[in-house]
Amino acid sequence: MIKKVNSIISASWIYTADKINTLLEDHSIVILEDEIFDILPTKSVFDKYEADDVFALSDHIIIPGLINNHTHAAMSLLKGYANDLPLKSWLEDHIWPAEKQHVSEAFVKDGSLIAIAEMIKTGTTTFNDMYFYPNETAEAAVEMGMRANIGLVVMEFPTNYASDPEDYLKKGLDFRDQWRDEDLISTSLAPHAPYTTSDKTLSLVGTYAEQLNLPIHTHLHETMEEIKNSISQFKVSPIQRFGALGLLGPNLVAAHCTHVGEQDLNLLNQNNVNVVHNPSSNLILGSGIADISKMLDLGMNVSIGTDSSASNNRLDMFEELRMAVLLGKGINHKPEILDSNVAFKMATYNAAKSMNKGELIGSIELKKKADIVAINLDSIFTQPVYNPLSSLLYNGNQGGVDYVWINGTLKLNAGQLENIDLDKLTNIAKSWKTKIKTT
Amino acid sequence: MIKKVNSIISASWIYTADKINTLLEDHSIVILEDEIFDILPTKSVFDKYEADDVFALSDHIIIPGLINNHTHAAMSLLKGYANDLPLKSWLEDHIWPAEKQHVSEAFVKDGSLIAIAEMIKTGTTTFNDMYFYPNETAEAAVEMGMRANIGLVVMEFPTNYASDPEDYLKKGLDFRDQWRDEDLISTSLAPHAPYTTSDKTLSLVGTYAEQLNLPIHTHLHETMEEIKNSISQFKVSPIQRFGALGLLGPNLVAAHCTHVGEQDLNLLNQNNVNVVHNPSSNLILGSGIADISKMLDLGMNVSIGTDSSASNNRLDMFEELRMAVLLGKGINHKPEILDSNVAFKMATYNAAKSMNKGELIGSIELKKKADIVAINLDSIFTQPVYNPLSSLLYNGNQGGVDYVWINGTLKLNAGQLENIDLDKLTNIAKSWKTKIKTT
Repeated sequence: MIKKVNSIISASWIYTADKINTLLEDHSIVILEDEIFDILPTKSVFDKYEADDVFALSDHIIIPGLINNHTHAAMSLLKGYANDLPLKSWLEDHIWPAEKQHVSEAFVKDGSLIAIAEMIKTGTTTFNDMYFYPNETAEAAVEMGMRANIGLVVMEFPTNYASDPEDYLKKGLDFRDQWRDEDLISTSLAPHAPYTTSDKTLSLVGTYAEQLNLPIHTHLHETMEEIKNSISQFKVSPIQRFGALGLLGPNLVAAHCTHVGEQDLNLLNQNNVNVVHNPSSNLILGSGIADISKMLDLGMNVSIGTDSSASNNRLDMFEELRMAVLLGKGINHKPEILDSNVAFKMATYNAAKSMNKGELIGSIELKKKADIVAINLDSIFTQPVYNPLSSLLYNGNQGGVDYVWINGTLKLNAGQLENIDLDKLTNIAKSWKTKIKTT
Repeated sequence: MIKKVNSIISASWIYTADKINTLLEDHSIVILEDEIFDILPTKSVFDKYEADDVFALSDHIIIPGLINNHTHAAMSLLKGYANDLPLKSWLEDHIWPAEKQHVSEAFVKDGSLIAIAEMIKTGTTTFNDMYFYPNETAEAAVEMGMRANIGLVVMEFPTNYASDPEDYLKKGLDFRDQWRDEDLISTSLAPHAPYTTSDKTLSLVGTYAEQLNLPIHTHLHETMEEIKNSISQFKVSPIQRFGALGLLGPNLVAAHCTHVGEQDLNLLNQNNVNVVHNPSSNLILGSGIADISKMLDLGMNVSIGTDSSASNNRLDMFEELRMAVLLGKGINHKPEILDSNVAFKMATYNAAKSMNKGELIGSIELKKKADIVAINLDSIFTQPVYNPLSSLLYNGNQGGVDYVWINGTLKLNAGQLENIDLDKLTNIAKSWKTKIKTT
């Protein structure tokens, strides 16, 4: 009896990101509706299944969809807006004024659409966002068929989006109620950073997180200045302050952590805090370099993010992974650390786990959501291929990303976005430039 | 009177890499034979010139062809052969045994062809090479229409290619005589490294370099271990030893220089030594990080190289430039340094100058050889474009490289290599893998 399924994807190699980093050869993934229904040797797949959509990818390696674990997607409209400036001038003279003048529902919707197109084309199937007007980011994600964990921003000072912490929180919780039945959308509480939120606000966030069982996504120890100012104002580092407020725990997703002394590292580790490494953004802004190999050695859960297009300026997780690996080897003078298994685990399962989705996404295993990426390794850039996952890490590039499925739906087909007008999106980006540059 | 020329290339932006980093808007480059014959506003180009080949590139930025200033091109066949290993094991247990077993005229010819295809597709028009069997690398370059400066390797120990320093030198000088009339090929003397060449050999190289007016291309201060061993054996650092032997001068092209103390830095600077920064390779092998911003501040001539595919594992100068810039900003905590003008100058004019070709290539100026690259900036990865050269540095990628001319000849046309069978080259890489992996 042959079972009818939605899609059968056969590939030369499948990196599953399961507990033992299995690399399957000549296997097929069977998709039924939004799930991975079976994984079996290709030679027997057609004895058991038939499907309308059959993909025979003999030049490809399949991996779980990449998870970009720290983004501000809408800022793609500010990509390259203020490069090569000192951090203070970058923020105070350029990014903040531009945000104040331009950030709106339309800005967030358009910026998010453009960011999501770039992410899908580079193999990302989930992003962990934090920005204003979350409703528009969620709308963009659902329109594009992208999975997103949306951070509900809270900070003290007013923006176009909200007036005070209560207003931010109310808008965030309304958002959560409104989107709770949408498969592709989940939420975190997102106190922006220690230096933009009061103890009172942080405590309130902690309470909501516990009551609603939500992750907390924040910027933490991004720069030395942040730490110095915290010690001057609160007598303790931001990590210690978070600890005192009861916010350090396995539901905390801390982006950056570039400067973390022994005591702070122990606090993060003992409390099972999740760290998101953003190497390119940290380099570009001169913030510092997080020593993730030390964190991984301790058994901490480390994942990878691009940060926004205003700093990175890319949202390409393959670039970010390669940067994380090269930088980690380089600063530790240890070429043998951070191999391709560690790298892709950070960009898949570790990120899923940090956002409380370890059972749903982040690996290619039975009953998980079918978030899947296939990359062509048969090119002049990648051949000869001695070790496919290693080739993907060091030689792979966005030109090789051929197929992307999210929640079982094909989103990238032979390198082309399905049902998405890329030229139209590119033109939207251009029209925002005209508006932003001349005002 | 309208003059007939070979090609007219009109573009929205032209970064010339001239002394003042001129960025022309809506200009055209007129190519006559192998030279840049004129540069003028596009609105008047057709009043003065006509050509069979006319390119109207309104979405593109044009830059001088990139110069990869430190390569071992043939090692593309060992791309990914031994990733994630400690340096000693990488070299002694993997790379050297593989080279001993497989390096031959055929290996060098095929490996060089594959490397050159990757380089042209990523906007490189000249590479500064050092490897065995230079004749085969030169043959590959001329077949592909690529410009190459070929290093004539000298070392103490025997290889498949040569038996002793005299043999290396004789073969090298024979090569030079044989290729002296070929426009695309020039030569350097290439003592491999301080730790593989004796004082006697280095002195001989110095004498030949002076007599023949040749640059000297070498590895210098790549690792701490190299420096420690030199101090233990010779009582001085490799840089100081080169100085004592009279080898420090404006004709010396020193790859790496990752660990350079004040005294050594002064020696390099006072003697106008050219430094080639190879950031990715240095990170991957855990060798260290060269502080090029300090060197540039001193007015030293710094250029960029990928090193070989066995370490990098890419030969993509756009990736390498971005890495150099991000790393320099990051380790110095200065986001404002190493902007796009500095970056592209390193990858063009500075490299040309180091190989004694500053009058011929490295910038888009009248009477220079027409080595030209056009990159499409109108994509979802690059828009919005606030500053075209900065967008190219931070957001550009190999997918955008559309047109490459070398010595006036079109080598890449709308992203496709002209007269080169890429599938055939990719299959050659695959067949070498089978041979190398199973023996």
